[in-house]
Amino acid sequence: MKTHDIPALLTFADALADAAREAILPYFRAEHGVEDKGGADGFLDPVTEADKASERVMREMVERTHPSHGFLGEEFEETLSQSGYQWIVDPIDGTRAFVAGLPTWGVLIALAYEGEPILGIMDQPYLDERYRGWNSGADSVIRGARKALRTRECARLAGAICSTTDPYLFKGAEAEAFGKVRSASKLTRYGYDCYAYSMIAAGHIDCVVESGLRAFDIAALIPIVTGAGGGVCGWNGGFAAQGGRVLAYGDARVRDEALTLLSRCP
Amino acid sequence: MKTHDIPALLTFADALADAAREAILPYFRAEHGVEDKGGADGFLDPVTEADKASERVMREMVERTHPSHGFLGEEFEETLSQSGYQWIVDPIDGTRAFVAGLPTWGVLIALAYEGEPILGIMDQPYLDERYRGWNSGADSVIRGARKALRTRECARLAGAICSTTDPYLFKGAEAEAFGKVRSASKLTRYGYDCYAYSMIAAGHIDCVVESGLRAFDIAALIPIVTGAGGGVCGWNGGFAAQGGRVLAYGDARVRDEALTLLSRCP
Repeated sequence: MKTHDIPALLTFADALADAAREAILPYFRAEHGVEDKGGADGFLDPVTEADKASERVMREMVERTHPSHGFLGEEFEETLSQSGYQWIVDPIDGTRAFVAGLPTWGVLIALAYEGEPILGIMDQPYLDERYRGWNSGADSVIRGARKALRTRECARLAGAICSTTDPYLFKGAEAEAFGKVRSASKLTRYGYDCYAYSMIAAGHIDCVVESGLRAFDIAALIPIVTGAGGGVCGWNGGFAAQGGRVLAYGDARVRDEALTLLSRCP
Repeated sequence: MKTHDIPALLTFADALADAAREAILPYFRAEHGVEDKGGADGFLDPVTEADKASERVMREMVERTHPSHGFLGEEFEETLSQSGYQWIVDPIDGTRAFVAGLPTWGVLIALAYEGEPILGIMDQPYLDERYRGWNSGADSVIRGARKALRTRECARLAGAICSTTDPYLFKGAEAEAFGKVRSASKLTRYGYDCYAYSMIAAGHIDCVVESGLRAFDIAALIPIVTGAGGGVCGWNGGFAAQGGRVLAYGDARVRDEALTLLSRCP
């Protein structure tokens, strides 16, 4: 098994997040144009100038410092890896929150090795909050204060706080499966994108249920939630780093109970 | 028409909000017990210690400084007014966001005169953001920086960002009416409670549609949204300060279009 120099790679990931912050913050709550990517769901995928500026600066830093590393982002074409390492980046996860002035979007930065995320950062520039994970551990740096992250115990869905970004994104059988988890949970929150996953790692939320995710929506969040003692899997219990239908949880007992409701979804 | 000493009353309202901040912040993201008010929707209405501590300190300040003013809060019994003035307070609007560690709850403080809200504050202690309005004007104080608030222009629902706290709170005909507004809007966000109304005042969101509100959920937000150039009305176009079914908007053209979809709801 290959070992990785996690401290050095995390320092570099921090530098990427710092650069993204600087690129994005001038645009938040400023007058800005929302470009429409077009297509049937065009309105659901607004792209801001900030999104592009943020991805561009991170991509340039990776090319300069780690030319053998690949780069997969939301906005521009993929760069293939020559070393097994690939950065997987969503320059602004939660663009709809961003354009509405709401501070619950984030910059997602993952480093994968041969397809497996080995570290991840979720950064919220406006709140000065950063969540970092490397599968065997996770921490937060909030307004300068560093703290280890730890999910909380939750024995049953009936005691769980659940979250999903937008319940109308589930269609047909997915909507039905999500409805079962929602009904079984203590309470459900909406609208938080990557922020909700970070709240699992911080021990405030117990599970997130989503579908239709792309790799860059989820890769960075896996090492954070896992490193804090929870996990992320598909609705079938399998590998989630490619996106699709995802369940994130703080306590494996909540996972087991949620999977009985989700895994039969065709 | 009675005139009011708005600057002095606003200074006192600021002092209430400062005291509420101090009472609440130690509880946010701390280990805290969530008390259940019971009843069929018990889980939907968690009350924290912070909620009570916040209301208690504001109530005491009003009794001490303005003994002739009434006080209506969420947690304790109403004090009747002997002067026409009544403070209407929600110590934590968005308790479900609060318990989930999400920073989109707020302290709502309204002053009404003979039932009409004449000034309001929405304070977000964790973000250090305060939104203030007095019907003829509104401002924000964010991390110490004061700025006049102004809603943005929006000619049509098709170009509007719409928000509601929880789409599952609408039942039957209400769900249908909300669905029409959602379908006609450019995009819809969920989960933001009072924070979404403040984003109307700040010119980032175009409308909020909710139902089942109580007076203390909405009274403070009316002078803020109105003072920024928008407004708040019932689904029938009428008075909204008592709560119930509410439409808040930044541009009267969005109001007119939304009311054609909402006003027929039985």
